Amino acid sequence: MNTQTVNSLMAAISDVGRDQTRGGYSRPVYSGAETTLREWFSAEATARGLDVSTDANGIIWAWWDLPGATDTALSRRGALVTGSHLDSVPGGGAFDGPLGVASALAAHDVLAAREASGALLRNRAMAISVFPEEEGSRFGVACLGSRLLTGAINPVRALNLRDANGNTFADVAAANGMDPAGFGRDEAALTLIGDFIELHVEQGKGLNSEAHTDHAGRGPALAIGDTILGHGRWKLSFTGQGNHAGTTLMADRADPMLAAAQMIVAVRATASAQDNARATVGRLEPVPGGTNVIASRVDLWLDVRHPEDAVTAMLVQKIHGQAQRIAAMEGCAVFLTEESLSGTVHFDPVLANALAASVRRTVPGAPLLPTGAGHDAGVLAAEVPTGMLYVRNPSGISHSPEEHVENDDAHAGVQALADVLEDLL
Amino acid sequence: MNTQTVNSLMAAISDVGRDQTRGGYSRPVYSGAETTLREWFSAEATARGLDVSTDANGIIWAWWDLPGATDTALSRRGALVTGSHLDSVPGGGAFDGPLGVASALAAHDVLAAREASGALLRNRAMAISVFPEEEGSRFGVACLGSRLLTGAINPVRALNLRDANGNTFADVAAANGMDPAGFGRDEAALTLIGDFIELHVEQGKGLNSEAHTDHAGRGPALAIGDTILGHGRWKLSFTGQGNHAGTTLMADRADPMLAAAQMIVAVRATASAQDNARATVGRLEPVPGGTNVIASRVDLWLDVRHPEDAVTAMLVQKIHGQAQRIAAMEGCAVFLTEESLSGTVHFDPVLANALAASVRRTVPGAPLLPTGAGHDAGVLAAEVPTGMLYVRNPSGISHSPEEHVENDDAHAGVQALADVLEDLL
Repeated sequence: MNTQTVNSLMAAISDVGRDQTRGGYSRPVYSGAETTLREWFSAEATARGLDVSTDANGIIWAWWDLPGATDTALSRRGALVTGSHLDSVPGGGAFDGPLGVASALAAHDVLAAREASGALLRNRAMAISVFPEEEGSRFGVACLGSRLLTGAINPVRALNLRDANGNTFADVAAANGMDPAGFGRDEAALTLIGDFIELHVEQGKGLNSEAHTDHAGRGPALAIGDTILGHGRWKLSFTGQGNHAGTTLMADRADPMLAAAQMIVAVRATASAQDNARATVGRLEPVPGGTNVIASRVDLWLDVRHPEDAVTAMLVQKIHGQAQRIAAMEGCAVFLTEESLSGTVHFDPVLANALAASVRRTVPGAPLLPTGAGHDAGVLAAEVPTGMLYVRNPSGISHSPEEHVENDDAHAGVQALADVLEDLL
Repeated sequence: MNTQTVNSLMAAISDVGRDQTRGGYSRPVYSGAETTLREWFSAEATARGLDVSTDANGIIWAWWDLPGATDTALSRRGALVTGSHLDSVPGGGAFDGPLGVASALAAHDVLAAREASGALLRNRAMAISVFPEEEGSRFGVACLGSRLLTGAINPVRALNLRDANGNTFADVAAANGMDPAGFGRDEAALTLIGDFIELHVEQGKGLNSEAHTDHAGRGPALAIGDTILGHGRWKLSFTGQGNHAGTTLMADRADPMLAAAQMIVAVRATASAQDNARATVGRLEPVPGGTNVIASRVDLWLDVRHPEDAVTAMLVQKIHGQAQRIAAMEGCAVFLTEESLSGTVHFDPVLANALAASVRRTVPGAPLLPTGAGHDAGVLAAEVPTGMLYVRNPSGISHSPEEHVENDDAHAGVQALADVLEDLL
């Protein structure tokens, strides 16, 4: 049997998809790098005797079936599923996604050893799952795989999403061996998931906050997921009059870059004035984008999050109103498009408390924590009991090369994940 | 002998380099599209019996030698040269560049017919020249070919310029058959240019302004160049702390996008407060550029122009100071890099008056006009007597698909260019 520590598993993929320009990793879904990681996962799972397949929505499943099950299909119903994703944001860290996948493989190894020694008697099958396009960094919609699985996105809309090069999701999926007609809510696959557990690097400063750190300023290795902040993405397109930067007088301009700039400042002011709100413009594309050309259009993407869904809606409405006033003032027009929207997720409290009890056997101070980051677990929570474990990130920084996990904490994460899974198996 | 109207010449290249995304044309230097245009020009010139060669700086020369010249090299010294460029800004119009090249070919045809009939007796050779990277849209420095020819840019700096994909100018030039060691001031080539005349689409509203239009609101077909507004390009890089858009509190951010946005607003305010100044941010690139990622760096490019060089310098100094204050306020840093700088050009007044006299034989109301747009003629003006003709652009819009020239005006441009050249030959 193949057995590896999570740190050696992570080391094996540490050269895949490094971004020489941005630093860190760029592993967009179905890129060469992400495909390499999917193949790496399938090979690791197969080496462990797991039964690997990719479903109609592009989700990989690696089944650890019950020993001696006569009807495999039937015995997989209501299974315990754990996993995460392998894609990254552009210039992201090493852990966001892959840590959950590698930890699931390593936790399987711990459990398989317990089963082999007779210490573990399972009541149900287990699977490790890998979800595509969790970050939404290629096609714009985060958690695309789990949204397709659950029907949280209309498959026709998903198939028409385009990447930055203009390729549709339909074409990219077909080129990767999938049938575009097969995408959409998959009742059969959902029946297989009894509970879903996702381990993930913490993406904020929760475990490093004063409430949880010891006298040396060190927080516990792990936390249990409590809530996921509601969030959404909107695209704002400002259109004006493209023209020559040298021949067009300042007074004669209808420059959408000026509208976009004022919008970015207004977005920050609006979010800062609202308790617990976060709003970000991290992506902006002027068209045509020449130095000596007044832009004819500027597209910017807005990420808004708040614990109360009604407040998120109010914030976006307010920003849209500001955008219209700014555009009018600049002689421009503006169009707002919603790209994705997810309400605040409250993880199943019974399951969360069970996870906490299991985790605290090895990490006594592990707290329940809210997070501002979206996850496939948040999408699945609408369908099945779902829980999350977060591994301490000493930098508190994420979606950046500075995201970090210490080896000891990663190891503690695997031990706790194994205990959590054992208690649920 | 091959003879074509300027309109049929322009029609022949009207499908080359169309930009399906931005509209108009994208013909960056040494792209497939621009290479196709260079090959088209060489074929057209060769078909006219012109002697075509490309010099060490990538400038194409098509020589119309003196009939019966015994020492060709000697007879080319102090020749009359006309031409323009074939590259475009991203999503530019059809005329900016190619109109001057096509008009030169068509004017040659007019003159060759006059010579064949005995009506024209030349005193010197003539050449049509095509300059590479006039727009600077690929490697960032406008008029790169003429700057290399005249030594206005250090060739080592030029060779290290990079395009958006990270390719150096040295590598791209080598891939296009040039010797990187050959770039730089070319005394032999400069000796050949006695006078340089560039015909170009007008890029502003000069010929459409009240001072020049008739009762029907129509301006004359042509103008003669008077001055070129001084201009420069600078890159401003704001660096902050890349992080997760969901987990990072508004108060904890050092977001360079906020600094860049305030900078864009400040640039407009600064330029608007200064008579005759123009300042533009048409290109901006957040790094890494993900929707759910607070940027770690934002690069923006600044285009500043003013008739007085000291004022341009003062404006950039002022903007740099603002950038430093804004960056500090946002917990960011900023770096300013000058990419190019050209002083205001006053075309040779004797030559300009001679051009005006020639042009007014067919276009009586043709005025002398200043322009805010840079040209290779502006770079060459520091070396040899240089003049320009502008053809009316009814939209007044340029660097945009809406740039336009009417067929009759293009035809008038060729007739006037032929008269101008004849008077100087």
